[in-house]
Amino acid sequence: MPNPTAAMLVIGDEILSGRTRDSNMHHLANEFTRHGIDLKEVRVVSDDRDAIVAAVQALSAAFDHVVTSGGIGPTHDDITAPCVAAAFGVPITVRDDARALLQAHYDRSGQELNEARLRMARIPDGATLIDNPVSTAPGFTLNNVHVMAGVPSVFQAMVASLMPTLTGGAPVLSQTLRVMRGEGDVAQPLAELADAFPELQIGSYPFQKDGAFGTNLVVRGSDAAQLDDAMTRLNALFAD
Amino acid sequence: MPNPTAAMLVIGDEILSGRTRDSNMHHLANEFTRHGIDLKEVRVVSDDRDAIVAAVQALSAAFDHVVTSGGIGPTHDDITAPCVAAAFGVPITVRDDARALLQAHYDRSGQELNEARLRMARIPDGATLIDNPVSTAPGFTLNNVHVMAGVPSVFQAMVASLMPTLTGGAPVLSQTLRVMRGEGDVAQPLAELADAFPELQIGSYPFQKDGAFGTNLVVRGSDAAQLDDAMTRLNALFAD
Repeated sequence: MPNPTAAMLVIGDEILSGRTRDSNMHHLANEFTRHGIDLKEVRVVSDDRDAIVAAVQALSAAFDHVVTSGGIGPTHDDITAPCVAAAFGVPITVRDDARALLQAHYDRSGQELNEARLRMARIPDGATLIDNPVSTAPGFTLNNVHVMAGVPSVFQAMVASLMPTLTGGAPVLSQTLRVMRGEGDVAQPLAELADAFPELQIGSYPFQKDGAFGTNLVVRGSDAAQLDDAMTRLNALFAD
Repeated sequence: MPNPTAAMLVIGDEILSGRTRDSNMHHLANEFTRHGIDLKEVRVVSDDRDAIVAAVQALSAAFDHVVTSGGIGPTHDDITAPCVAAAFGVPITVRDDARALLQAHYDRSGQELNEARLRMARIPDGATLIDNPVSTAPGFTLNNVHVMAGVPSVFQAMVASLMPTLTGGAPVLSQTLRVMRGEGDVAQPLAELADAFPELQIGSYPFQKDGAFGTNLVVRGSDAAQLDDAMTRLNALFAD
């Protein structure tokens, strides 16, 4: 059976303007790979209602899971939750369980649960909450869309909360052979190896180091024995 | 007049598997911001023909410019060029000027322009070449799609070659005020400021440092005088 598929939707002007370098994509990609879920697409869109709604609808229809990051804080530009509700045509209101979590959190810290912070308790009808052990304000899952914060420490905590609830496939294993030859010199034998192992993904990633060109040859797949066979062939092909 | 819009399409299994951390997005975002071109969306897709063709068609129809990165090397998994040709329904063949560039390059380095390397001279009909001063194999522009390499040093060199050919708008300026308050405490006055300056983008980006919560308040826009006005108001609002 093929692995479940997933997409990620990163919401935030700050990534598109170059102000911030996204790191959540890399974290999620690694977590999904470990859990045997194939991350097939990532989209980054700005804090724009139409763009978010359209992306949620397109990605949730095309993939088994969608993870969003960003836009669930207390400020005027945090519009992800109502956009996800709109994408599925369900109402969104301040929900009692989410409000209780926030109330307890701000009581403990002696801060006020003001109107802005209460925005973080707005949860679409039918969603389940995702635990946030870092800063309390929860994420949520609505249908196959998992809505999480953009702050990396919070995003990572929410991913850790989510992962055990997802059914994964076989973890994707990978092995790498580093050769000090240009891609153009390895292309032909590599293509033949890829033909011989149709169930494996075989990729080549060129690099430049100290003026010399090299290539990382990466073999990926779920079958450890096949992977070992391919690496044995690869090592023989490029033994210097 | 509004600034031109752009999207980026990152092609590569290695990003989606978590093996590689993309850095081209951040570079391009900064270059576009400096040139007054609004980067509106980024997509990352795998080395899959259907996914690439669909993304090129969707993004080139929706935005003024599309920049792609990755998948134009000599190996079997480098399929970007034929996919871009297919997206626009034009043929792709080895072109004499691109072949001459590669021939001269490999003659100089005493390497063979073999069949695999010749793949890098395949250029869709009607495209113009993008100069690659790092490793010679050119990128190309077809209609509003600019096709570039994924290796960061080469990508950056190609962006530098491309930029002077694009008509930019007013550069987007930004100023930041860092306050040691949580987002929930700044949300209300910030929303009022955003209402007062509808032509500016006003964003808030929370951070955690040494256990304390703070927020970076970022004001963006093309009008330097308006930006200064907004920052004066912002400083007054949050003067401690």
